[in-house]
Amino acid sequence: MGRVAVVGTGVTMFGRSPKTGMELLAEASLDALMEAEMTPKDIQAIYVGNFIGELTERQAHMGPLAASALGIPGVPAVRVENACASGGTALRMAFRDVAAGYHDVVLVAGTERVLQKSTAENTEYFATAGDAYYESAAGITFPGHYALVARAHMQKHGTTLEHLAHVAVKNHKHGVKNPKAQIRKEITIEDAMKSAPVADPLRLYDCCPFSDGAAALLVVSEKVAREHDTPVWIAGSGQATETLDIADRPDPSRIRSTEWAAKQAYQQAKAEPKEIDVVEVHDCFTIAEIAALEGLGFFPAGQGGPAAMEGETYVGGRIPTNPSGGLKSKGHPIGATGVAQAAEIVNQLRGKSTNQVKGAEIGMTHNVGGSGGTAVVHIFKR
Amino acid sequence: MGRVAVVGTGVTMFGRSPKTGMELLAEASLDALMEAEMTPKDIQAIYVGNFIGELTERQAHMGPLAASALGIPGVPAVRVENACASGGTALRMAFRDVAAGYHDVVLVAGTERVLQKSTAENTEYFATAGDAYYESAAGITFPGHYALVARAHMQKHGTTLEHLAHVAVKNHKHGVKNPKAQIRKEITIEDAMKSAPVADPLRLYDCCPFSDGAAALLVVSEKVAREHDTPVWIAGSGQATETLDIADRPDPSRIRSTEWAAKQAYQQAKAEPKEIDVVEVHDCFTIAEIAALEGLGFFPAGQGGPAAMEGETYVGGRIPTNPSGGLKSKGHPIGATGVAQAAEIVNQLRGKSTNQVKGAEIGMTHNVGGSGGTAVVHIFKR
Repeated sequence: MGRVAVVGTGVTMFGRSPKTGMELLAEASLDALMEAEMTPKDIQAIYVGNFIGELTERQAHMGPLAASALGIPGVPAVRVENACASGGTALRMAFRDVAAGYHDVVLVAGTERVLQKSTAENTEYFATAGDAYYESAAGITFPGHYALVARAHMQKHGTTLEHLAHVAVKNHKHGVKNPKAQIRKEITIEDAMKSAPVADPLRLYDCCPFSDGAAALLVVSEKVAREHDTPVWIAGSGQATETLDIADRPDPSRIRSTEWAAKQAYQQAKAEPKEIDVVEVHDCFTIAEIAALEGLGFFPAGQGGPAAMEGETYVGGRIPTNPSGGLKSKGHPIGATGVAQAAEIVNQLRGKSTNQVKGAEIGMTHNVGGSGGTAVVHIFKR
Repeated sequence: MGRVAVVGTGVTMFGRSPKTGMELLAEASLDALMEAEMTPKDIQAIYVGNFIGELTERQAHMGPLAASALGIPGVPAVRVENACASGGTALRMAFRDVAAGYHDVVLVAGTERVLQKSTAENTEYFATAGDAYYESAAGITFPGHYALVARAHMQKHGTTLEHLAHVAVKNHKHGVKNPKAQIRKEITIEDAMKSAPVADPLRLYDCCPFSDGAAALLVVSEKVAREHDTPVWIAGSGQATETLDIADRPDPSRIRSTEWAAKQAYQQAKAEPKEIDVVEVHDCFTIAEIAALEGLGFFPAGQGGPAAMEGETYVGGRIPTNPSGGLKSKGHPIGATGVAQAAEIVNQLRGKSTNQVKGAEIGMTHNVGGSGGTAVVHIFKR
């Protein structure tokens, strides 16, 4: 297997956009090309991450549309969909193609545009990430899914609403520094704990927003990477599934797919949790960040909440988590999220993030689909 | 790159089904495992081909759902969507993963369930394979897309309605022998030419039906293949895009993605058109079969129509085309189609198809998304 690097990143503003998902994708892709001093003609294959374009924009088949949008019809293109882990999955496909020697330059582009639809519509659309016949049909939506995880975590480990609030406060504080973030506003513990209930025990500030946005990466072979000043290497990749139905899980407080995917990525990268300098995890809900940090091995089970309260996950803390603001503050344009996470970590390892972790050398991304049905983990090295 | 083979095939009945897309997928997958004398625990990765589960069943995220349905949560799984080429794309992903040595056993499973929706709904849903903003919004649906191709082919090459009718008559005749086919009924040239207009010049019998169904393949490494009696080798794979918008194509009578994908597959397989003994092409409309056979190099541009009329594409003819009945008669459960094509060719090369081409040694599949936005071509050898 050849070595693989990222040499270009592009991320649009996250938030409400008048642009179509494909226009956002093109914007992010051209930014990535510009950063890498490359042109569309250098691209040999495209992976598009998108979750529900059929529902929100009546647009499927985004692979060839992306090729056309970039002026390179002919180039093979595939849209991958793994719910909210679509972007991370697209990155993994590109990594494996380049490592195998199939291509030297692959564009990974994630996009989603949902804000022209109502909250009610989007809530229904997002539920397609769960089991249509055994979960969604019973009325459960995604805040409900994660409320079940939170309740199980509280019962088993004594995790509290205050623990959850500390995750929200930290990610909002981080997000203020990110010029692309959707919600750049500091909040207090009291704001979080007194916000409106959404799905008990989760409150408004436990939930990430709906977002429009896109992100892109240029994933290249060692040969191409050597022509660039600051390649960031993909050192490990892991992916796993878990039962889609929460009811089928032996312990709903754990996201086993995260544990399994992390194990693969650590092994491939020959790395351990204590070596990771910075991580972007999938904090679609505050409880998701806590479960993620435990599943990734940064804290023992049940210690994620107290660690958040003690400030260990701030930039400057023991394991700087979501310096971008995370899904919570930066926003969560579904198909783009896993790609934007990687863009943040790449820029952290280049030493040029907007909320820089000093001297970061090894970073990680963690992207989840549904309530853990899919988890994708990548480890990056400078 | 390692050699890669198919050792198990499973195809459900095509047509109206009371089962969910996931139940159909499980049925086809278990049939493939049974044929290969393997169990779900042998599967190391899953690629699911599905086009519009979000719209027809409110079900996205089918990768982990498939893993759960087969009792193997944990196994990495990805849903790929390239419109009507989703199944062929899933096969290509599996082929490349196994060739690269990432896995020894990969399940490729395509599924689609649409017939619980109305023709009007499905027509709207299928249009998401075209460009939402520049094509679908102008009112064009897929019969309209292919009517444009047909009209361009007629103007440039003198292709006639009678030529098209011969494609339909041949595929219906082939389909009668396929016990899994949706429409097992012979028709006459007169039936076809006098059938109701759908999108001028295309008539009812120029169009494939809407279908429910699933298909599965077990794609394995040479090491695993050697443990089986009749492995069929994947000798070549090609994939290309074309502008999604027909209006942007220099010559709408040609499907250039087919030409480009075929070139890649022929090169990798070190094969030429004249060596192919049997082919399954993407005949969603009769004109699509004619354009496909020209694009794949079996006939010069403009000769596809006359060749159909002269009987060259029957089993027993010069290039036996769609012995399964094709999409036209066998049915077209979108995500399953590319997978079912491969199942047919594998069984042809094993000498055990229900409409066997005598002594077939090299076969080909050709799967198209939209009106040619994607084309995927595979070459198989005994």
